[in-house]
Amino acid sequence: MPEKATTAECLCIGDELLIGQTVNTNAAWMGEQLSLVGIRPVLTRVVGDDRERIMQALRNSTADVVLITGGLGPTKDDITKHVLSEFFETKLVHNPAVEAHITALFTRMGQAPKQVKQADLAQAMLPADCTVLPNELGTASGMWFEREGRVFVSMPGVPYEMKGLMSVSVLPKLKERFRPSSIIHRTIRTTGMGETQLAQRIADWETGLALDDVTLAYLPSPGLVKLRLSTYAGKDPDEARERIDRQAEALYKLVPELIYGEGHMRLEEAIGKLLKGQGSTLALAESCTGGYLSHLVTSVPGSSAYFIGGVVSYANAVKMEELGIPSDMLELNGAVSQPVVERMAEGVRQALRSDWAVATSGVAGPDGGTPEKPVGTVWIAVAGPHGVSSSMGVFMGTRELVIRRSAIAALNMLRKRLLQLV
Amino acid sequence: MPEKATTAECLCIGDELLIGQTVNTNAAWMGEQLSLVGIRPVLTRVVGDDRERIMQALRNSTADVVLITGGLGPTKDDITKHVLSEFFETKLVHNPAVEAHITALFTRMGQAPKQVKQADLAQAMLPADCTVLPNELGTASGMWFEREGRVFVSMPGVPYEMKGLMSVSVLPKLKERFRPSSIIHRTIRTTGMGETQLAQRIADWETGLALDDVTLAYLPSPGLVKLRLSTYAGKDPDEARERIDRQAEALYKLVPELIYGEGHMRLEEAIGKLLKGQGSTLALAESCTGGYLSHLVTSVPGSSAYFIGGVVSYANAVKMEELGIPSDMLELNGAVSQPVVERMAEGVRQALRSDWAVATSGVAGPDGGTPEKPVGTVWIAVAGPHGVSSSMGVFMGTRELVIRRSAIAALNMLRKRLLQLV
Repeated sequence: MPEKATTAECLCIGDELLIGQTVNTNAAWMGEQLSLVGIRPVLTRVVGDDRERIMQALRNSTADVVLITGGLGPTKDDITKHVLSEFFETKLVHNPAVEAHITALFTRMGQAPKQVKQADLAQAMLPADCTVLPNELGTASGMWFEREGRVFVSMPGVPYEMKGLMSVSVLPKLKERFRPSSIIHRTIRTTGMGETQLAQRIADWETGLALDDVTLAYLPSPGLVKLRLSTYAGKDPDEARERIDRQAEALYKLVPELIYGEGHMRLEEAIGKLLKGQGSTLALAESCTGGYLSHLVTSVPGSSAYFIGGVVSYANAVKMEELGIPSDMLELNGAVSQPVVERMAEGVRQALRSDWAVATSGVAGPDGGTPEKPVGTVWIAVAGPHGVSSSMGVFMGTRELVIRRSAIAALNMLRKRLLQLV
Repeated sequence: MPEKATTAECLCIGDELLIGQTVNTNAAWMGEQLSLVGIRPVLTRVVGDDRERIMQALRNSTADVVLITGGLGPTKDDITKHVLSEFFETKLVHNPAVEAHITALFTRMGQAPKQVKQADLAQAMLPADCTVLPNELGTASGMWFEREGRVFVSMPGVPYEMKGLMSVSVLPKLKERFRPSSIIHRTIRTTGMGETQLAQRIADWETGLALDDVTLAYLPSPGLVKLRLSTYAGKDPDEARERIDRQAEALYKLVPELIYGEGHMRLEEAIGKLLKGQGSTLALAESCTGGYLSHLVTSVPGSSAYFIGGVVSYANAVKMEELGIPSDMLELNGAVSQPVVERMAEGVRQALRSDWAVATSGVAGPDGGTPEKPVGTVWIAVAGPHGVSSSMGVFMGTRELVIRRSAIAALNMLRKRLLQLV
């Protein structure tokens, strides 16, 4: 990133954030919005509703922009407004426009103006020395302070009120005030190879990114690695877009079989698109994934267009009766075996008359592992118009993760069959 | 909190947190865990993978305990380990035990020791001057530093690895090291009534808690409300425990049918216990929940003892052929109807020969709603030794939430049948 990027920090105020009763989604959302307009988030701080801690955080702040959320409610423990007045050496003055807005809000909720509580009307007392940002959605106004070329903005902690203020006034004002050179992103989603191995495979390409002023971020999650390409648009956004696309194209050439989508596309959505596009249907036979694979497939809106159904064959009796696995095959090989998982896939494909079928059988753990078949051992089979294929993997982590990772591996195996990559 | 409470701050490292690609759930979880053992979280900081910013945060830290997460991966941009060595003026040394652990991890995944990448083996290089905390679930070890009576702990940012380290070694070591004036908690888990309605129903009881110096926290999540009772142990833990138990007992008398468990017990675990205890078996027939119900049931270790299997009957053909629903019944009532869902439950109970069976059929959305059956309409049936019962609910929210809420309602209906509450 260039040296002169406008920097921002978030100061989130609230005990509930510190003790984990509320997850700080505000900071994530603000960070994303700032990045999208080319302002660089460099620090997030969370402090309690505590005068000294808030003062300290304000004093220690160094970024060009300081976005402050929380502590603007009408109750005693909300002190942000008072601490800000102290920090900026100003005082609270009555704002008639805000009081009118507050009264109107309560009238809309069916209260007579007289009934509006003093505590709520006190929300109209605001620092003399700031630009008040109207909050259509609540009683706590936004406050915009400028000091020595730096901007401090105070907003309520209620996510939808904060988002409203950010979208309607804060982000536009920041863009106007700092004119940041906007950043262009492109996120390419991969599966089937771990972060380390992937990094080695694309090392040369990664080195070459610098020539196009493109930066790369690895964003791994269980079974998946997202690669986010970023560059500054500068004067010529089209030219920047070209640089990103050029590098993305090179990546597609380098690891075509690993890429299943871009942006927010999930693997199960990508498979849905493929099945829809080919007019094919899918059925599932799950043992160790226990319904999770079906859940992923059906979590996609409109999946009923291609997903016929599935069998969760936990007990061997179900494998035999619903999927037609011969009992001697189970005795001979055990449920976690290549012949059984392939028969499961073929069995459910026949029973539900689908074009494609995927089956899983493994040891999710924590118990049930053996020296030959340790916890995490999973057999996966895909049956389709041109026959059945299968593979075995050993997946790391908790029961939850073994289930998740094997489900993703199963979806990826289906994806490759659908694309005839295998 | 008492004045001399042990204080803690979290330092979360990672660009992905700053730019909002990842929501910082780690800080929330750590904050909750710290509070639960009587350590007071006073500050959370999030910085990027940037040497100077990490150094600055370490220098400015003042709390008794500093929990550091992230930046311990094997790739170039992970620099936490190096910055810590610099800050604590020590150097990285090779740790044979950790290397053996890493090699073992990859061997389990089917890689020959020779194939293990240098980058991964480099995870065995750790600061000389720290206590290494073994990480069973990954290649990044935890690091425990002590300086001038303060403790710094570095952990991976991958949530399940961090949680593993916290639970197994960090929290126990912190308790031993600081002996915080302990807080006694008891968390009682309820389902079947929303937060507001529940609060009204137990209002008088809640008022009475003050007499026993017990505080109450509502911890709502989709379909569930946890009630956490807390009090300081002070000099006499037994007496404090008595106060908590006395109040808990009163709550049990007040809302017996809503309480399904305590502590970390999940609803699906509670049902597992009940089925095991009664020596009964379960089968599932899912339409709108699409496998999610099976996933919840099979996410419980040892569920194969009572869960036989399930059918995800997305297409009507599957409802007819696998579950024996007459086609005219489907035509007459539609799939989302009382007769169909009851027949689904009875059908899967017969087909899989289980003692109990649960079925769901509804409109998960976002499409497929009608004036009579809007999105969120879900029929649930439970079939058991004494016949079948069913009920209809309309669940709010996204497709994901409708699926989750209806699955929880289905589990709760089974729970009540098993306990003969209905």
